[in-house]
Amino acid sequence: MIRRYFDWAATAIPGPPPREGSAFPYYGNPSSPHAEGREARKALEEARSRCAAVLGVRREELVFTSGGTESNALVLFSLLCRPRAGGNGGAAELLYSAVEHPSIRENSAVLERLGVACAKIAVGREGGVSRAALEKALAKNPRAKMAALMAVNNETGAVNALRDLSAAAKRGSERLHIHCDLVQAAGKIPVDIGGWGIDSASISAHKIGGPRGAGLLWLKKPLPVLIRGGGQEGRIRPGTENTAGALELARRLEERAAPESLDLSYREASARMAALLARLRRIPRFVPVPESRADEDPRFSPWILQAAFSGIPGEVMVRALDERGFAVSTGSACSSADKKRPVLDAMGVDPATAFSGIRISQGWSTGMDDIEALAETVEELCEKL
Amino acid sequence: MIRRYFDWAATAIPGPPPREGSAFPYYGNPSSPHAEGREARKALEEARSRCAAVLGVRREELVFTSGGTESNALVLFSLLCRPRAGGNGGAAELLYSAVEHPSIRENSAVLERLGVACAKIAVGREGGVSRAALEKALAKNPRAKMAALMAVNNETGAVNALRDLSAAAKRGSERLHIHCDLVQAAGKIPVDIGGWGIDSASISAHKIGGPRGAGLLWLKKPLPVLIRGGGQEGRIRPGTENTAGALELARRLEERAAPESLDLSYREASARMAALLARLRRIPRFVPVPESRADEDPRFSPWILQAAFSGIPGEVMVRALDERGFAVSTGSACSSADKKRPVLDAMGVDPATAFSGIRISQGWSTGMDDIEALAETVEELCEKL
Repeated sequence: MIRRYFDWAATAIPGPPPREGSAFPYYGNPSSPHAEGREARKALEEARSRCAAVLGVRREELVFTSGGTESNALVLFSLLCRPRAGGNGGAAELLYSAVEHPSIRENSAVLERLGVACAKIAVGREGGVSRAALEKALAKNPRAKMAALMAVNNETGAVNALRDLSAAAKRGSERLHIHCDLVQAAGKIPVDIGGWGIDSASISAHKIGGPRGAGLLWLKKPLPVLIRGGGQEGRIRPGTENTAGALELARRLEERAAPESLDLSYREASARMAALLARLRRIPRFVPVPESRADEDPRFSPWILQAAFSGIPGEVMVRALDERGFAVSTGSACSSADKKRPVLDAMGVDPATAFSGIRISQGWSTGMDDIEALAETVEELCEKL
Repeated sequence: MIRRYFDWAATAIPGPPPREGSAFPYYGNPSSPHAEGREARKALEEARSRCAAVLGVRREELVFTSGGTESNALVLFSLLCRPRAGGNGGAAELLYSAVEHPSIRENSAVLERLGVACAKIAVGREGGVSRAALEKALAKNPRAKMAALMAVNNETGAVNALRDLSAAAKRGSERLHIHCDLVQAAGKIPVDIGGWGIDSASISAHKIGGPRGAGLLWLKKPLPVLIRGGGQEGRIRPGTENTAGALELARRLEERAAPESLDLSYREASARMAALLARLRRIPRFVPVPESRADEDPRFSPWILQAAFSGIPGEVMVRALDERGFAVSTGSACSSADKKRPVLDAMGVDPATAFSGIRISQGWSTGMDDIEALAETVEELCEKL
């Protein structure tokens, strides 16, 4: 059976390995003083420079981590876990959009238990944060230290207008730290880290075809971090540096996030998504989530679609498609263990539709034939199930 | 120039890559519901079972992490970072041996700032913790929650008698959690996780020839963790699982830590270390650290030697050896940024000797010719410098 992979938001199909058949040459510990260490250090710093060039930031601002989840946690806990500082009089120190990834959302509960008040920023029916919603949250919590606003939602593809949002936020509170989860954005939609007015950002390697266990945290200014260890990565992320992972991440960013290749892949993904949506609209039970999503819709990433098929539980559809060779998912793989759909709930999606929602996410090797085959199979299933 | 690598304690020379020339087959996200996800899950759980078999523990007790540093931090913060619980009346909640790795030592300072009192357990001149020292620390801090006792010190190779120490500790305080950093022990000296009476342990893949960004935390009982995210790894370690890293770690553990191969490699390393020490003793300026270290000495790991050459600063010796093709280091690569030698200070090594100390660490591919070449070059340098 041909397998057609439509779960690129969970993880990408990796590209070919770096140097086929050869062992990774920079095995030294980059913190070691000898030639092997210096070579590994050079390779690591080369990886950092290459990532910085693609992202348009300074190399000193990039910290290699083990992935998006760690990058998010690192900035949250470092900035906020200061319970001895006296608290904030009950007002929220962390504001986060109601649809953030679990690595933000779940940690807000941890911070609450540690005495750091947190508040959600409401999202609209389209799953994005409006300027008005952000301003309202800031007005209520004028001493907030940090706002977490993801660039692209991992379940719906909803895109936040980061430049506008951060301009509005900074007008209200210049010292507010804006953290941006770029995990579903980097290499997929145009990103302007330096120009958006944000303060930190997270990137994951495996979402763009790189290896697991590698990620980036961009920090406009160094942070006094919570968790220490060896002094690696400018004392921000301890642990022996993953040189091979860093070089692979740099290679994938160059491949995917460089302006020319991004421009092309974005247009191709948009065309395929428009075709998929147009085709799915011929199926009576199809409901796009949110319903207002157009075939070509700049408010959404063209790489991710949340779709419901009335009366068919999402899990049933996922299983039926899987049996027919298609890999799709319901929500985030990171929260597949429980069956709640907090992201759809926050958008005000009615429970029946949320229960039927599946996530279709495409990638660089997805073809029009895959799109057509998926739509056809979904149509058949809608007649049968 | 032939390079002879003597810094295996910083990182091991990796073995050959897993399946030469072929891409890693399990790219799915192990938390995804489809065939690609299930295959990746199966591979991940196979890796866990294989690690468990080698280590003689139950597979449910193993959590894959990004490495030793993260494993150490995870258990420290999860067990101790509960500042709302009311504190401990000023008495220490964490006891740690004065020579622990920076990922324990440095985090004790962080915990202190968060209101968790910590106290050092003194080490003797040989760099190990004696039962008396541990009992003294426990008597002073009867409500301590956790004691961190490394199995093998990363700078001197000093071995702690974990079975005795944990028996003594548990006699004093049954509920004391004993955490054991096994990073320099696993695959190198006999380890009995289940039999030592400890409660948690950390292992790093790259120290035994596996990849960076992969490690293990063994937990006798699940912990309510500090940092959350997706529900991966039994809700203990969030983030998309590094399946490739886990499988490589399993392969390296099987290669290095299985009883037969460990028995052989330990005896070989002991023979080489004895030869190196005997040969170095012919150099008048040679001082083993500690001075009492014998050629074959079960109190020390045969894989690591701390050696001083009177009057020659460690850094000068490291550089001179590097220029001649030998990779050695001074202290831990994880603390190479500063020049202090807290481990040697804690052992009462006099400052002049500490200043001259270098770490020589060998590995599986170290040969007697390497040992002889190193000793000869050191001898020449001692006459010249």
